[in-house]
Amino acid sequence: MAKREKLVVIGGVAAGMSAASKARRMAPEMDITVFEKSGFVSFGSCGLPYFVGGVIPTHEKLIVRTPEQFAKNNIAVHVHHEVTHIDLGEKKVHVRNFESGAEFEEPFDKLVITTGGHAVKPPIPGIDLPGIFPLRIIEDGLAIRRWIQEKKAQKAVIVGGGYIGLEMAEAFRNLGLQVTVLEMLPQVLPNVDADMAELAQEELLRQQVDLQLEHKVEGFEGKGRVEAVVANGKAFPADIVLLAIGVRPSAKLAEEAGVALGQTGAVAVNERQETNVPGVYAAGDVAEAFHLVLKRPAYIPLGTTANKQGRVAGANVAGGNAKFPGIVGTAVVKVFDLQVARTGLTLAEAKREGLNAEETRIKHHAIGHYMPNPTPLHVKLVYEAGSHRLLGAQMVGQQGAAKRIDVIAAALHAGWTVSDLGKLDLSYAPPFAPVWNPI
Amino acid sequence: MAKREKLVVIGGVAAGMSAASKARRMAPEMDITVFEKSGFVSFGSCGLPYFVGGVIPTHEKLIVRTPEQFAKNNIAVHVHHEVTHIDLGEKKVHVRNFESGAEFEEPFDKLVITTGGHAVKPPIPGIDLPGIFPLRIIEDGLAIRRWIQEKKAQKAVIVGGGYIGLEMAEAFRNLGLQVTVLEMLPQVLPNVDADMAELAQEELLRQQVDLQLEHKVEGFEGKGRVEAVVANGKAFPADIVLLAIGVRPSAKLAEEAGVALGQTGAVAVNERQETNVPGVYAAGDVAEAFHLVLKRPAYIPLGTTANKQGRVAGANVAGGNAKFPGIVGTAVVKVFDLQVARTGLTLAEAKREGLNAEETRIKHHAIGHYMPNPTPLHVKLVYEAGSHRLLGAQMVGQQGAAKRIDVIAAALHAGWTVSDLGKLDLSYAPPFAPVWNPI
Repeated sequence: MAKREKLVVIGGVAAGMSAASKARRMAPEMDITVFEKSGFVSFGSCGLPYFVGGVIPTHEKLIVRTPEQFAKNNIAVHVHHEVTHIDLGEKKVHVRNFESGAEFEEPFDKLVITTGGHAVKPPIPGIDLPGIFPLRIIEDGLAIRRWIQEKKAQKAVIVGGGYIGLEMAEAFRNLGLQVTVLEMLPQVLPNVDADMAELAQEELLRQQVDLQLEHKVEGFEGKGRVEAVVANGKAFPADIVLLAIGVRPSAKLAEEAGVALGQTGAVAVNERQETNVPGVYAAGDVAEAFHLVLKRPAYIPLGTTANKQGRVAGANVAGGNAKFPGIVGTAVVKVFDLQVARTGLTLAEAKREGLNAEETRIKHHAIGHYMPNPTPLHVKLVYEAGSHRLLGAQMVGQQGAAKRIDVIAAALHAGWTVSDLGKLDLSYAPPFAPVWNPI
Repeated sequence: MAKREKLVVIGGVAAGMSAASKARRMAPEMDITVFEKSGFVSFGSCGLPYFVGGVIPTHEKLIVRTPEQFAKNNIAVHVHHEVTHIDLGEKKVHVRNFESGAEFEEPFDKLVITTGGHAVKPPIPGIDLPGIFPLRIIEDGLAIRRWIQEKKAQKAVIVGGGYIGLEMAEAFRNLGLQVTVLEMLPQVLPNVDADMAELAQEELLRQQVDLQLEHKVEGFEGKGRVEAVVANGKAFPADIVLLAIGVRPSAKLAEEAGVALGQTGAVAVNERQETNVPGVYAAGDVAEAFHLVLKRPAYIPLGTTANKQGRVAGANVAGGNAKFPGIVGTAVVKVFDLQVARTGLTLAEAKREGLNAEETRIKHHAIGHYMPNPTPLHVKLVYEAGSHRLLGAQMVGQQGAAKRIDVIAAALHAGWTVSDLGKLDLSYAPPFAPVWNPI
């Protein structure tokens, strides 16, 4: 009898567990082992700010499936196990068990690298002071909650006004903390254009968030724990600090083993999620994804992409021929009572790419104008001059932004023009109709 | 100087006013006259049930623009004017002014027929009794409200369990009336499959609507006004009756003039909205639309289609070359607290077409499973066996159904497979992901 093929998956969050599960379904005989550095696998990391803010009562609610549940499907999941080295020649990984201190080697026939990403931690004075947290894994969420409770924290400073930073602003406000957001750029949410970001900024002010734009953090102060954040020469008092200035791929392990990285610094993969090494796949926040509008690989770490890439990797590991065609840069964030959604390229991004891009911006009611309490939905379409090919869209409003952006995302996948969009048979009077007319 | 070209538009609701407005924008010199039989133009007829139910406080709120506002744009709008005859040879229409009784002829160079549709009124005993109403125009809504108030109506019987019937069930309940719905078929909402309709039926029961399926109306009883509806040999007491058993194209005027109708009984048009007669266009509820999934003309009267067709007709009247590619059968209805959305073909429709269709039905949470109070979203995908080409979808849930159906509608326009759908870069964990997996 032939030896059972052995799959090792490094990292057990979204991409890793999707890959393992898909491989298991397609190859019932395969030997599948997952090593996860943290104490939890298969959790919804997008829900972390809502756990910290108390909207989700317990961290268990974030967990889709436990190691015990995976064991029933014959997937061996080892938490608190870090892979410290990949030996591609010998086809084995070196593993350290954090709990016992034991180290061992594990052979593999196929390898899926889903080591994820990590919060950027710039080398500035005081960055290692207790009380400064990233928010990537469940342990971070638990630590933040514990710190707030134990230290009776009243003042939170958030470094970075991106998605995580603004979601955490709401979480901290929910817990009754005063919140300051320090953002280096002249706007929050660098993934939307400045005029759309301004709507989010107005919402932050309405929610009593102290927003400081163009404030670059120079250091952290405090005796034994963080007490203030210094930015633009001024000290902002802080009982707790959230570091949310970006996510970088945790690709060092792969790179050291000889797996090629792309221009973005993330692992380069083809549409089968294969790396440059035969039998070695990568997926999720450690990997690039092909951007269908930019027509080149990009690094946009998101849970939905991780799940899709993981499934494709898992299918191919098991002998399938699945393909992940790519992303169009769709994302949505809730900023207190506002939804901010985007897809494709912003006008600023399109111009940076050298595209001859134009925009149309309209303010529309999210529901029929005649219905009570209509709330405005701000819609911006970005398109190529001349051809009118759609390049992207942004929407901001109290309702309807999140789901409506998906139609534009589909249109970007299809390569449609603005006029094609106006002719779609949709379930509502399309908010873009007034846009289509002037064109 | 050349004579100004003259456009006559027959009918001034959605399609007609869209055509007139588009023509005006593109041809500032054109002479544009609109004749509308009722007393109102440019109104949101989809909002009528909400006006009757009191959600929309006044009928003025339904009106997008008044004749006076159109006059400022140099569009002459005549309400209470019925076109009684079209003379295609002489290029003129005969018009009757309802208010003055005057009749006159109006010449045209270009003609747009947007005479709309009318409620089906079967020739059964008592159908003309006072207290029996359709709901198509603002006057209907005003008459229903007046009748309920003057007669102190307490019992409403709705004949027909389609979109209008169920929206009016909610409206009547809002006004405190007892409501009985009589439906001839074994299910409400004939445009969705029976299993999805059942969810709407459960909602009706929860909302204390007396639903009588497989009840065919045989007659209406009453002395001087309707007092009961007889169905299956049983009398259902009624202070007011809403007739909502379907809409037919008001195509008689066009047909009598020699404009060709299609198989559906509506005016046949090409993708430029041209009829068989040069210079004569049709749009909206009087016209067919090409169904992109069925690949043949269909009659599905809806306001969104009317607006799009009207714009295309208006652009072409003004010398443009606009095209309306067609519809995919997207619609959404609110049944009290439920949203019921559909696009493409139902499984029953697909089978009736002789397609080798299959379905996958899943129950999913409309928001992240870890968020509080997730409500179930029932999703059904219909696809072709073998090719997995998407044929349609239906969604029922308290939230998220209406907007999510639009992504499937876009996918139908693009001709995608179920697998293509699962790979879209959308703003949410797609509800179809669990569907994609098993396939």
